[in-house]
Amino acid sequence: DKYTRPAVKTEIPGPKSKELAARTDSIQNTGALSFFCDFEQSKGNYLVDADENVLLDCFQQISSLPLGYNNQELLDLCKNDHFQATLLNRPALGTFPGLGFPQLVEDSLLRVPPPGLNQVITMACGSCSNENAYKAIFMWYMKKKRGQEMPVLDDLAYETCMKNQVPGSPKLSILSFDGAFHGRTLGTLSTTHSKPIHKLDIPAFDWPIAPFPRLKYPLEVHESENAAEEARCLEIVEDLINEWNTKAPVAGIVIEPIQAEGGDNHASCEFFRKLRDIALKYDIAFQVDEVQTGMAITGKWWAHEHWGLETPPDIVSFAKKMFVGGFYFSDAIRWNMGYRIYNTWMGEPSKLHFLKKTIEIVNSQNLVNQAQLTGDYLMKGLKELESAYPALLNSSRGQGLFCATSISGDGARDKVSKDLLNQGVLVGSCGNESIRFRPSLLFSPAHVDIVLDKLNVALNNV
Amino acid sequence: DKYTRPAVKTEIPGPKSKELAARTDSIQNTGALSFFCDFEQSKGNYLVDADENVLLDCFQQISSLPLGYNNQELLDLCKNDHFQATLLNRPALGTFPGLGFPQLVEDSLLRVPPPGLNQVITMACGSCSNENAYKAIFMWYMKKKRGQEMPVLDDLAYETCMKNQVPGSPKLSILSFDGAFHGRTLGTLSTTHSKPIHKLDIPAFDWPIAPFPRLKYPLEVHESENAAEEARCLEIVEDLINEWNTKAPVAGIVIEPIQAEGGDNHASCEFFRKLRDIALKYDIAFQVDEVQTGMAITGKWWAHEHWGLETPPDIVSFAKKMFVGGFYFSDAIRWNMGYRIYNTWMGEPSKLHFLKKTIEIVNSQNLVNQAQLTGDYLMKGLKELESAYPALLNSSRGQGLFCATSISGDGARDKVSKDLLNQGVLVGSCGNESIRFRPSLLFSPAHVDIVLDKLNVALNNV
Ligand code: FES
Repeated sequence: DKYTRPAVKTEIPGPKSKELAARTDSIQNTGALSFFCDFEQSKGNYLVDADENVLLDCFQQISSLPLGYNNQELLDLCKNDHFQATLLNRPALGTFPGLGFPQLVEDSLLRVPPPGLNQVITMACGSCSNENAYKAIFMWYMKKKRGQEMPVLDDLAYETCMKNQVPGSPKLSILSFDGAFHGRTLGTLSTTHSKPIHKLDIPAFDWPIAPFPRLKYPLEVHESENAAEEARCLEIVEDLINEWNTKAPVAGIVIEPIQAEGGDNHASCEFFRKLRDIALKYDIAFQVDEVQTGMAITGKWWAHEHWGLETPPDIVSFAKKMFVGGFYFSDAIRWNMGYRIYNTWMGEPSKLHFLKKTIEIVNSQNLVNQAQLTGDYLMKGLKELESAYPALLNSSRGQGLFCATSISGDGARDKVSKDLLNQGVLVGSCGNESIRFRPSLLFSPAHVDIVLDKLNVALNNV
Repeated sequence: DKYTRPAVKTEIPGPKSKELAARTDSIQNTGALSFFCDFEQSKGNYLVDADENVLLDCFQQISSLPLGYNNQELLDLCKNDHFQATLLNRPALGTFPGLGFPQLVEDSLLRVPPPGLNQVITMACGSCSNENAYKAIFMWYMKKKRGQEMPVLDDLAYETCMKNQVPGSPKLSILSFDGAFHGRTLGTLSTTHSKPIHKLDIPAFDWPIAPFPRLKYPLEVHESENAAEEARCLEIVEDLINEWNTKAPVAGIVIEPIQAEGGDNHASCEFFRKLRDIALKYDIAFQVDEVQTGMAITGKWWAHEHWGLETPPDIVSFAKKMFVGGFYFSDAIRWNMGYRIYNTWMGEPSKLHFLKKTIEIVNSQNLVNQAQLTGDYLMKGLKELESAYPALLNSSRGQGLFCATSISGDGARDKVSKDLLNQGVLVGSCGNESIRFRPSLLFSPAHVDIVLDKLNVALNNV
């Protein structure tokens, strides 16, 4: 690494960032803007901002950079002529793919399929990955119902679907969970329930929403209480499936292995196994949204591998650190006509080159295992800080490097995360009182030490 | 150009394409797959396929490449270190933009704004551009209704929106047109009405759908009939707005300047001016979807510039040939809180570098004007072929290079477009009996001559 520790020169955002923000504000709202980055000066885990502050980045562009900034092997790839031709001549991939495409998929996505799934399709972001996964689920559901891929030729469905009416546009639903985040387009937004700011004023599908377990920490102290909470949630899932059957049958269940945006909410492996069983019992699809949990950060390539499922999910969607969006799916989900799941770009092959190279790096450097070990080390440190600040810090939770902790008290979370930033440590926030760590896979115990040190100072300052 | 004419060696798809398709079919449905491309061998208007067939490409990856294949200036850009850093370090643009971002927007999107619009936001594809434009419209509508950006603190809206219920998730609608195509995610799909295959089995919002004028060609022969047809459609628009007011008020109207996917359906400038007036009369938003018509192909940068509007549209969305998605919008539409229109990537800055360079090329080579002149030349040729094949060819229509023609008779369109392909000319199809031309902006009269020559042969073969 070019940098070994944070170095803060100005308040953040500094004067340069503020000047650039004012300029940007003349063309769009900048309410979500934090600061401007000097990406060319950034390296690995260190992000340099427009005012030359060097920040240890534990958030990595909302968990979307697996290897941090300016990884040399990826930069070399950018200099490759074949890569450049793939980048520049972006195809309509579903119709006119480049001749290297099948090999590229085999060398990237098919190197890391979730166990039991061998079909995959690419998309461009998390939202279209989930939107199209839902569509595939609805198509699968209707195919089952009528016993064939398409309705007979003169079926009313053809005419009515053009008018958004039943039976062609059926009343079906996707069951999602309170606190979930699956995207912000109108279909996925109907399954997102993390914050009002995302949903207010936007029409939504009336689809069932089940409670996600609210576990109490530390887990070992609240075992029976947490088990009861999970049982309660699963019971409501079944109730909702039965209840909705008469108005908009549940065609599928979608769930994150760890609810990220909603507050880093975990549930037990048993909860997920039972949920999978419920989907099987009612013959509805089970989709695991691994947009944020995928790509090794939890200590396995896919977070749901921790669960020990007997039957794989029907669909696993991805984006962010995978560079490209898309979803893996089972043979049963596979549709059998062109243009049913389709759009102009269908993702972008150049991103698969980034993915291919990243998979090689992750495997050769054993980064999946490192994510587990470094994550354990971070969790241990967070728990020690909990003991030191029992009234303030609690509910530290994590899987691999995918960690969070909660800070109690009015405004305390925001105060701590701002203090951390001014000490040169960038973390994310989620829910109402959590900070979240979404570092790169190159995050090491030495980085953890810096974080814990600064967090100690910040907690002390509250 | 490296190539000066088509050269076909095999049937298309040829044996190599078929082999690659079989390989791809083991991981996903390939029903929409046409053939595989050798992008490295392709140049300008000529696409070389996996079997070394050289095709004059009048479709350009579904109208998404403005300057054809391997443009040298864009390839040079790919070799630039700053470009590569922008590409590799893809930011969460709404929160941590690169320090060059404001300048980059000024040098690209703000070089070509639709008249009267000075706000712009980037997205990643046509679907999320339109999804977010609809969201901006709904937010604008509700802001107007309550007289302030957000509801008061304890308003029921905050709680209900989390459950997809009114009043937080209001019953509002976007009025769209029969034959329209605005995307395939669940929100935009509810405004898409081009083909059942896109919509069948997918739940949709019950939103109003107005007829789009079905003009008769040649226009000069059917003037009064066409005027009556347009008046009929406008009347139904007003009826629908009034009718929907009690169930799901129309917050906005969305329309393509030329319905592309739906069959290259045109309407008069007067029709669009009157439609804009209706939106003003009812104080609802007017969105022009220029995803396919934008970027100079109609002989103006934006197709709606042809209309002579007195009041600009409220929103103009784009994607495809612009490299990046997004939408321009008015000050009135602008939202004033962060995270309301937001997602992880918010487009991709590296694509703005492609756009910036492309705008420079288009301007320096006067390609907007060339699109108009070459398009006129193509239209003249198509009309001459109409005279030669009056029973077969009809309804040639176009604006700049954005041209189409219809071929009557059962299966005749598919026969002609296949024959053209086997002669080395790739065109698109749309609607039930049209072929469409979506060539690059470098398309010249010499290319038109080749197309007309081959089309003559194909029509003769029917
Ligand atoms: S919806 Fe995913 S890129 Fe547009």
